[in-house]
Formats: sequence, structure tokens, C-alpha cells
Amino acid sequence: MHTTLRSASREVVIGHDQPFCLIGERINPTGRRIFQEQLRAGDLSAIERDVAAQVAGGATMLDVNMGVPLTDEPALLANAIKLVQSLTDLPICIDSSVVEALEAGLAAYEGRALVNSVTAEDERMELILPLVKRYDAAVIALPNDEFEIPMEADRRLELVGHIVDVATGRYGIAIEDILIDPLAMPIGADTTVVATTLETISRIRAEFGLNMCLGASNVSFGMPGRHTLGATFLPMAMSHGLTSAIMDTRSEQIVQGVKAADLLLGNDEWGMNWIAAHRAREASSSASSG
Amino acid sequence: MHTTLRSASREVVIGHDQPFCLIGERINPTGRRIFQEQLRAGDLSAIERDVAAQVAGGATMLDVNMGVPLTDEPALLANAIKLVQSLTDLPICIDSSVVEALEAGLAAYEGRALVNSVTAEDERMELILPLVKRYDAAVIALPNDEFEIPMEADRRLELVGHIVDVATGRYGIAIEDILIDPLAMPIGADTTVVATTLETISRIRAEFGLNMCLGASNVSFGMPGRHTLGATFLPMAMSHGLTSAIMDTRSEQIVQGVKAADLLLGNDEWGMNWIAAHRAREASSSASSG
Repeated sequence: MHTTLRSASREVVIGHDQPFCLIGERINPTGRRIFQEQLRAGDLSAIERDVAAQVAGGATMLDVNMGVPLTDEPALLANAIKLVQSLTDLPICIDSSVVEALEAGLAAYEGRALVNSVTAEDERMELILPLVKRYDAAVIALPNDEFEIPMEADRRLELVGHIVDVATGRYGIAIEDILIDPLAMPIGADTTVVATTLETISRIRAEFGLNMCLGASNVSFGMPGRHTLGATFLPMAMSHGLTSAIMDTRSEQIVQGVKAADLLLGNDEWGMNWIAAHRAREASSSASSG
Repeated sequence: MHTTLRSASREVVIGHDQPFCLIGERINPTGRRIFQEQLRAGDLSAIERDVAAQVAGGATMLDVNMGVPLTDEPALLANAIKLVQSLTDLPICIDSSVVEALEAGLAAYEGRALVNSVTAEDERMELILPLVKRYDAAVIALPNDEFEIPMEADRRLELVGHIVDVATGRYGIAIEDILIDPLAMPIGADTTVVATTLETISRIRAEFGLNMCLGASNVSFGMPGRHTLGATFLPMAMSHGLTSAIMDTRSEQIVQGVKAADLLLGNDEWGMNWIAAHRAREASSSASSG
């Protein structure tokens, strides 16, 4: 199953037979006080630096979130999307919990966007899925409802079924345009959560064949050695069927783990990408030492 | 299912609910010309250095192979095992293709050994499994026969079934004392081989519940970036059910990947090992820089 996203001039295909899709996550003011103040003052210059860093790290798409309290988020998100599209041709994942901001972002975006995100709550689906359909976008859907974030794979799978039924049946969204977030929780709080995530991923792939996307940095939250944990978790998840992640591509170790997993899972034919990247690193390290 | 190995004073348990078992692989002259000449001349001193390096790297067992052409391998292997047991209390995996050497090694060994290895060939099983039973050892079994190394998981599973039937039914070996090698081939020759290995691992776990052991360095043979490939492959394999590997524990990156996977798969309660190792590294790096 292939999910196709586009900017004005570039296409990205997400699928189980494709190299993993790395969605750069830093264009987001959450937890960044100075960035929030700048955005509130209308200063979007920090976005340029963040875009450049995520692109340099190897992002294949960019997540753009402008969730700053006490601002006109729809206008800010629309402006940020126009700015990011002037800086890079990578397709964008439009990220907001505010429906009006998602709509403003979709209206401003040139191409075929990914919407982040909807849940299995009927009220959220009613608000967001018609936008996804109207703007011919794809959408990330979280299998949680108004009652709980389920801690068992069985219940997550039930909610995936519900989302698929509603999105395809009621709103006419193509099944390949639904990416499920299999829900990754911090391992530091409970060491069984990753096993549940991996089971969820395997079963979504086996039972629905859907593409998936998760927030990769959650897993290592609060633990030491976060780069190693990320570089270990993502290949495991990929080997069970994860096809994309929202992640900070500035971590070379994590990006290398993803590229190694592409090779090992047969999504880097003849190892061409792996070998080329190795040669480029060798050339740049001999240039910098010479 | 638990496989229990012992030296004179230390016990190691291999199982799906246990930390991964790292079997240090360097006490082996294959491809090491100088080491071979030393062993041929009766000089076993290099073994001390190799044992120390594998133990320092975090090995939980040691593989000992003395396959030197034109030597009395049974006597050499027996001597090497006595020497290794004088240097460390880690249990040993006795590794030879020569049945007489396996027997001499088992006779010299103090504890409960792992025998490396038998295949699904009836002739090899007839020679090796009675030794495994007589010396109360466990055994690594490869699902290949005299005709082929099967490239499909289906055929590997059939041969696993045959090995289990013969070992338990004809020779009275307990099922938990059979470790299957799911066969890891070099990714450089064919980028589909790891997917086959992962499928084999998942199905052996689901259909038999057996412990498994493979040679981890094979996978990256001939490719650049071998440490990253090893550190990516092993966590993927562990997440599908691999419980031990024969590997070079001198690679800190690969060992760290294994420890991260132990944590992520719920085999490091509260992350105690992960956090303690992180603190020890911090302490040693501040000591060396201070």
C-alpha cells in the first residue's frame, strides 16, 4: 500500500516496500520558550535554521506545528507553511490540534499534505476527515478515543478498524491515505510499552496492511542514552512494519540506524544508498582532516 | 523456555524473558594466520588476551573453537577449554566440526556446556546428539541438511521440526536444550536474506517456543559500516525472538544496541542495567578526562 505526498515539485511515497520516511520534527515551538516568544512577535527566522538542520540530517518530509498559546494559530501556521515551502521542496505534515489551523494550513499548502492528526473520537473525525477529503490530503490517525489511550493491542486494533470504517465509508477517504500511529509510550514509565507498540504494528500490518507513523522520541523520554535507544527502537519497529516516523533528524546515530534497517529489510537495492552514504562520509571526513 | 548453561561456579539462563545472551566469538583461529601458527607451536597465550577482551566487552558466555588444520584438534580444544576455564567463570560454547574434538572438549569441560553445532543431517545427528545427551549439554542446531541451506523459511521450519523430533524422540534431549540457528546470510550478496531470517525467527518462536542463537557478524560481511549494521540487525532479530548470538563483544556500538533492545523489550526491569551502565560510562569518561 502506497501513500503519496507532494510539495509543488517533489513526491514522497510511503510504503512497506519503500525506504523509511523520516519526518523532521523540530519546526515546533512546544517546550521552546524563546522560539515561542519569537513567533508571538511575528519573527519566523528560527524556522529557517530548523528547516536547514532537518533537511541536512536527511529528512524526507517536515512536520510543521505552530501551537503557541495566545496567538492566531491559523494565520501563524499558514504563514509558517508558506515560509517552509519557500525554503525546501520537501512535502509537509501539517500538525495542529486546532481544526481551524489545520484548515488554514491546508489552504496555504501547495501540494498533497499529510494531516497530523485525528483520533478515533467521532467528534474529531467529523471535524477533520471532511477537510482531509476536501483538500485531497492523507491523515495520521491515533487509535485512542475520548475514554482512554488503550494499553492493549487488541483495543488499539479495534479502534483502527473503527477509524478505517468511518474514514473510508462515511468520508470517502482512500484507505492508503490513512496512516495509523501505533502509539509509542515512554519506556521509562513502564518497560512493557514497547512490546505492546511492536505487537500493534505487526497486527496493523497483517490485518490492514496500512502505513504507519509514530513520534519516535517519546519512547526514550526521561532515559539516558536517548540516541542509542532511538537508533535501536526504530529498526525494531521498522522490522515489524512501521513505515514512517516523526523524529529529529539531527541525530546522526538514529538516522544511520534507520538507513541500516532500510538495507537489512530489503528496501535499499544492492545497498546502493548505504554504500554511497558511507563513501560520502569518508570523503567529507578526509576533506576535513586534510 | 529456559536453557541453562553452567561453568563450575556461574549459571547463565537463555530465554525470551531474559537479557540477551552474548557469546563472545574471538577465541577462534579461523582466518587468523599468526594465531594458527602459535597454536600449532603449542603457544596458547593469545587466548588470554582474547578472553580478557571478550569479557571486558560484556560477554555472558564464550565460544571456543580450535579448528587449526594439521593439529590434534581434540587435544588442542581440551587444553584451550581448561585454559579458558582457568581465566574466567563464563560458561563455554564448545565449537567444532570434528566430533572427536567436541567429545574431548565436553570431557575436559567443568559445568554444563553448549555444543556448537549439529545440523539436520541424520548422520551428524547420530554422531553428535548422543554426546550432547551423555554429557548433559545443550546444542545449537542448524536447519540445513546434506542437500541445501534452505533459502525459504518454510523449509527451515520443516527441518527444525525434524531436528526436534529426532533430538527429543530418539536421543531423549530436553526440548529446552535445543537452540536453533535461524541462519543469517550476508546482506551484501542478496538484500532479501535478512527478511527471511526474521521470518524464520518469528515462526520458530511462535511454532516451537525454542531459544535461538546465530552468528551475528555474517550479516554485514563485505559491507561498510559493519558496527552500525550489527547494532541494527541484532535488536531487530531480538524483537522477533532471537535469544542469543555468537558475536564480537569488542564492538561497543553492537553491545549497546543489544542492551538498549533488552530495555525496550522489557528484559531490563526499571531500566536498572541500562541506567547503571550509563552512569558507569559517565564516571569512567569523567575520570579519564579529569
